[in-house]
Amino acid sequence: MKIPKKVVSALKEEKNILIATHVNPDGDALGSSLALADALVTLDKEVQIYSRDKTPPLYKFLPGHRRITSRVAAAMKNDPLLVLLDCNSRERAALTGYVFRKSVVIDHHETENDFGDIRWIDRSAAATGLMIYFLIKALGIALTKDIATNLYTAVAVDTGTFRYSNTKSDVLRAGADLIESGAEPHRIADYLYETWDRNRFRLLAMALDTLHIHNGLATTYITKDMFRRTITGFEDTENFANFPRMIDSVKVSAIFREVESGMWKVSLRSKGSFNVAKIAEGFGGGGHRNAAGYRIRADLKSAKAALSRSYKKRL
Amino acid sequence: MKIPKKVVSALKEEKNILIATHVNPDGDALGSSLALADALVTLDKEVQIYSRDKTPPLYKFLPGHRRITSRVAAAMKNDPLLVLLDCNSRERAALTGYVFRKSVVIDHHETENDFGDIRWIDRSAAATGLMIYFLIKALGIALTKDIATNLYTAVAVDTGTFRYSNTKSDVLRAGADLIESGAEPHRIADYLYETWDRNRFRLLAMALDTLHIHNGLATTYITKDMFRRTITGFEDTENFANFPRMIDSVKVSAIFREVESGMWKVSLRSKGSFNVAKIAEGFGGGGHRNAAGYRIRADLKSAKAALSRSYKKRL
Repeated sequence: MKIPKKVVSALKEEKNILIATHVNPDGDALGSSLALADALVTLDKEVQIYSRDKTPPLYKFLPGHRRITSRVAAAMKNDPLLVLLDCNSRERAALTGYVFRKSVVIDHHETENDFGDIRWIDRSAAATGLMIYFLIKALGIALTKDIATNLYTAVAVDTGTFRYSNTKSDVLRAGADLIESGAEPHRIADYLYETWDRNRFRLLAMALDTLHIHNGLATTYITKDMFRRTITGFEDTENFANFPRMIDSVKVSAIFREVESGMWKVSLRSKGSFNVAKIAEGFGGGGHRNAAGYRIRADLKSAKAALSRSYKKRL
Repeated sequence: MKIPKKVVSALKEEKNILIATHVNPDGDALGSSLALADALVTLDKEVQIYSRDKTPPLYKFLPGHRRITSRVAAAMKNDPLLVLLDCNSRERAALTGYVFRKSVVIDHHETENDFGDIRWIDRSAAATGLMIYFLIKALGIALTKDIATNLYTAVAVDTGTFRYSNTKSDVLRAGADLIESGAEPHRIADYLYETWDRNRFRLLAMALDTLHIHNGLATTYITKDMFRRTITGFEDTENFANFPRMIDSVKVSAIFREVESGMWKVSLRSKGSFNVAKIAEGFGGGGHRNAAGYRIRADLKSAKAALSRSYKKRL
């Protein structure tokens, strides 16, 4: 990976640095920010990390996550260099309206605008964490166990723990190096994938038991009564729609969740090129190609039939 | 990894080789066998692969799997060198009663007895596939795309795609090398995790619905009737025991499958340092620290109670 010299020199020259990342931060955003902060502190920098949103409970195992602040005003006082990670616009980081003397953008997403005095955007990078890994190496800073854990998590989250198509050999080589620096893959995987609440798991089992597949469309549902019986809520259903994607014949997976009597929230997940955002838009919702959603007021049978008609039109 | 010279020289000297692996072969058994066979063929060897049991549908993407035979008699005719992979006794490979002029054992499991003229048993190896990777390197044979795919699958299956505690840096470095030789991580992951038969998925949903958790021990079960109703078989239950490990409070997950009336096959999966091989051995079975199994003839209630007692003793 080629690291722009300007990025390295800016980080070396500046004393006060504000690392910021996107709203609703994920493992790559948080792990990258924490790792870079730790590395820069060893160079005697004053480093602050800003994230508008709280660290999700899932990521509270990340070393140093308590140093992340949602108050940016204090950090602005000493006129810091802004280092924007895992996003490339002020809007995505909830920094609209702030003016920075100098800014560095490090990201692997599509660019949204031309923000940043120094821009290092590598869409071929599997994770921002991978870019930070190579940056820390280029800065000549030794990987500590904490840095390694944060970077390994960042890369693991953005590659589906080495299952997505962005899992290239550089990802595994970096992973090996991070393990040798103290990252513990099984502990990180346990934190990421094995901390389900038992009630949430019972709800999943119940939902999967309602599976119906027709013509490549998989539907599952959760009634208010199922929520009540498992002492769970809507927020526990995150990711449920992904499970039926495991089935070879399934093109689209939809889960209907009864949020109030006769009102259903529907999440859609698709494989490959099937665009579920188009279906969701037809019901007044929206989303991305492979993940979208909408609300519908109807009885379950009618709601499923309506989806089935829209799905068939797009087959 | 240190490879015994005797293993390398035996493979170089012999002309006729019979590779055999354990009954109910998994991805490590099959991938290792297919990769070694491919490699040896490039050295002009006559190679046969024996597996008593059929290749599970899940593994029918493995290059060359059709060359595996369940008929050992034909292969015996030319008095081959036996290379036993991913197990270390004739019994585990359903080769009881056969006499071999010479045998090599390559395995990473606990030893069951002292079978084998040349024994290379490395319990610290994450997978037999990893041992075969280093062996092929030591033999000076180039990795083809097929070999890389088989070995990557072997290692992926035995490390839970790099999520188990056996995921050390050597595993990821080998993985990187295998990717550079043609293995495609996302395609392999799709085959392993997203090509479920719908009946198999229905069986999973049914099994998860039987979940019971007590004191960190999660149990699920599948009766003969559940197999019948979903038109599935024992071979469809691979990996099922892993699902309840997602629950934070679960230390050990056990699945009971009724293979004939009153006879249960039990798979155990554990988190962290909890050694389920010790439990399995107490019932005449075996395995690794985090994955083990045994058979028990009893009614379900008694079988579960017996496991619960053994579990509590080791808490």
